[in-house]
Amino acid sequence: MKNETPQIGVVGMAVMGKNLALNIESRGYTVAIYNRTSSKTETVAKEHADKKLVPSYSIQDFVASLEKPRRIILMVKAGAGTDAVIQELLPLLDKGDVLIDGGNTFFKDTMRRNAELDKSGINFIGMGVSGGELGALQGPSMMPGGQKEAYDLVAPIFEKMAAKATDGTPCVTYIGANGAGHYVKMIHNGIEYGDEELIAESYHLLHDLVGLSVDEIAAIFADWNKGELDSYLIEITADILTRKDDLGTGKPIVDVILDRTANKGTGKWSSSNALELEIPQSLITESVYARYISMMKDERVKASKILPKPAANVEFDKTAVVEMIRRALYFSKLMSYAQGFEQMRIASAHYDWNLDYANIARIWRAGCIIRAQFLQNITDAYEKDPELQNLMLDDYFLDVTKKYQESVRDLVGLAVKAGVPVPGFAAAISYFDSYRAERLPANIIQAERDYFGAHTYERTDREGSFHYPWYKEQ
Amino acid sequence: MKNETPQIGVVGMAVMGKNLALNIESRGYTVAIYNRTSSKTETVAKEHADKKLVPSYSIQDFVASLEKPRRIILMVKAGAGTDAVIQELLPLLDKGDVLIDGGNTFFKDTMRRNAELDKSGINFIGMGVSGGELGALQGPSMMPGGQKEAYDLVAPIFEKMAAKATDGTPCVTYIGANGAGHYVKMIHNGIEYGDEELIAESYHLLHDLVGLSVDEIAAIFADWNKGELDSYLIEITADILTRKDDLGTGKPIVDVILDRTANKGTGKWSSSNALELEIPQSLITESVYARYISMMKDERVKASKILPKPAANVEFDKTAVVEMIRRALYFSKLMSYAQGFEQMRIASAHYDWNLDYANIARIWRAGCIIRAQFLQNITDAYEKDPELQNLMLDDYFLDVTKKYQESVRDLVGLAVKAGVPVPGFAAAISYFDSYRAERLPANIIQAERDYFGAHTYERTDREGSFHYPWYKEQ
Repeated sequence: MKNETPQIGVVGMAVMGKNLALNIESRGYTVAIYNRTSSKTETVAKEHADKKLVPSYSIQDFVASLEKPRRIILMVKAGAGTDAVIQELLPLLDKGDVLIDGGNTFFKDTMRRNAELDKSGINFIGMGVSGGELGALQGPSMMPGGQKEAYDLVAPIFEKMAAKATDGTPCVTYIGANGAGHYVKMIHNGIEYGDEELIAESYHLLHDLVGLSVDEIAAIFADWNKGELDSYLIEITADILTRKDDLGTGKPIVDVILDRTANKGTGKWSSSNALELEIPQSLITESVYARYISMMKDERVKASKILPKPAANVEFDKTAVVEMIRRALYFSKLMSYAQGFEQMRIASAHYDWNLDYANIARIWRAGCIIRAQFLQNITDAYEKDPELQNLMLDDYFLDVTKKYQESVRDLVGLAVKAGVPVPGFAAAISYFDSYRAERLPANIIQAERDYFGAHTYERTDREGSFHYPWYKEQ
Repeated sequence: MKNETPQIGVVGMAVMGKNLALNIESRGYTVAIYNRTSSKTETVAKEHADKKLVPSYSIQDFVASLEKPRRIILMVKAGAGTDAVIQELLPLLDKGDVLIDGGNTFFKDTMRRNAELDKSGINFIGMGVSGGELGALQGPSMMPGGQKEAYDLVAPIFEKMAAKATDGTPCVTYIGANGAGHYVKMIHNGIEYGDEELIAESYHLLHDLVGLSVDEIAAIFADWNKGELDSYLIEITADILTRKDDLGTGKPIVDVILDRTANKGTGKWSSSNALELEIPQSLITESVYARYISMMKDERVKASKILPKPAANVEFDKTAVVEMIRRALYFSKLMSYAQGFEQMRIASAHYDWNLDYANIARIWRAGCIIRAQFLQNITDAYEKDPELQNLMLDDYFLDVTKKYQESVRDLVGLAVKAGVPVPGFAAAISYFDSYRAERLPANIIQAERDYFGAHTYERTDREGSFHYPWYKEQ
């Protein structure tokens, strides 16, 4: 078997690269593997000696071992590491070969690399891969962007290795030119930050406001997972809440986990890009900031002893509030996705990608971290109307806003009164109320800007730019 | 008089450059002026023939006309324009000369230029200038950063041209090395976005929720300006609200100004930097996003006809709500400045600037757009404790949180229930409640991250990084 020429190769034998290689091999392919440190390649080859893996111990041998046109997936540390590997590979490649960067790469780096390599006739695909280590092995959701003709050369392999939605559709599709794949993965991760923040706020309210135990909350999340909130993150949260500390304190594991959430940067990329493209992406950004403030643990502990608590105890019906939280979670999730898809719509025009939102929602239905029943509703919405301006305006989601908005309003009022921070829920309802506002008080700010900086203003009753004679005697 | 050698020169005779030159001249100096397009220089020289302005019509003549070491203020369009002028000037300058960029320059560009010019022995000061056209002429607030010894060469002139606080202190001080001045100006502008958003939300509530007329609201702002909210922006808002349309509709001018707020980028710089440095700067960011959503006017008009309104009318006492709005405005302003000063504190360590927060608050007391009585309280707070970790923890401000937090909570609940968007007020109370939270639900997110990505977690009861065996049979 090992004499078969590998149809594809993987560079980088850390856990993600190894698992992707094993995934591809399991679909009937022979896979060349290479790692800068040879011992890693050797270990993988030995551990999986029964598999059709072809190890190489020099990059020259690796490249020479591959079927042409060559297909090479890079699973190396994003950043300078990627550039270094590309520079090593470049003299060994032929026109028409396909390099695929499967790392968590910033989309502008992918745009640059795609343009540079294109000059030498080398195809470069930047591919977002979501699903963690298990997803890489069993089937991730994959978001490839780059030359379309290059994608066609790898599509048969990628469609086999990708996760499959319940209707059998593989969770991979051609996203668009140059950096489109890594861009869409960045938005996926931003949305993931939002989903996680909303779940955390729900937990916080169930725990601190309603006063439920961790076990009771676990049961509630398990119950929610049977309805419209059905999703991977709700499912694992329910599971997490049932787990006891493995170091023997007897406590639920969540009670011994420190309340500091780290980040690897994709959330902030997504918010920075929203700022740059002038898109109101408040919910994801509040989720990023919530992580930052969580990291300021020492400051918070100190402040908790100095700053005043809210005065009054709030009164409410416990069962009613649990349902309000569920509704607020679903409503706010909708607002977050509405913002994320609005960002992709504006980015698509800005970077000239012609993104297909139904296809993007479709490949997020399985394999990736944000997989959820809800993604089918989004797929349906964009299939019905590919030009849909905002998800809220789709009939299904419009109905959700009609049914749930009052619960969200009541819950935010209750949480704010009780002093439980709900930056995500509050951003959701602010966005909803701003988006449906025919008139906002932006006229006041524009008047101020014209007053102190002569920045001019537009009028409601005629076209053009105007400046008011603020400093002339009246 | 014109035979006196100019002590300083200004490049760029657009309104800001011209007004700064006239300001300096009015303090007893002779000022060399130059503009790429000679006709502009000529116009300024003719219009002010009685002033000690020395026009030059070539950059060589301009440089040759100056006293040594030369002091040259650049007031040109920020970006490539600044680099172009510097390249023209460079061969004509001597070691020890001082270039001052008074434009609205991104601080990282200033850092780069300072480092590059320093190699040739040329001093480079990046100086934020706030106060608009009138401020430039009559006395702005100025934030210079760069070589300290270079600042000392211009300090006597700058101290004369700067605005004076009520105690006579000039609103200029040495901020720090390389890009520190432009950085602090960027934060100033971010804070300005926050102030403006909070004023706009207050107006919106007074108008749409309380149902007051523009005249009534003008009187309320004028009244507020007599108390702790005393500030330039409240003052001009009161003035703006009294003005009638100058194009003859008979309406208040604010009613014919379109509700779209444009921006020139400094707000988004400040938020992007907060994201980069991992600082929870939610209020300014929500203010930036509020401007973006205001620009989506056509989408909003369309959505306003489709999306559901809140169900119920809310009931309240009008007079009580007006006072609640005033308190919410002051409380939220405090949160915004707390975030802005926290951002400067972290940036100061990150970029090695050793910022002096009392001095920064001191030079914002007059001349600049955010000037306010409140800046005296901030000055006092940092004078009392230069290491103050967060403004909220100062006694004066702590007292504000104690007295006003309930009003903010009630108002946010009321606004959300009534459907008036208050992203700024909501961000303020979320920040307050998060900052004073000993325990946040960040443990849930960190558990999820460890579950799907093996990102590890910290514990409450011991040091180190841990990974839970989520996938092992229990």
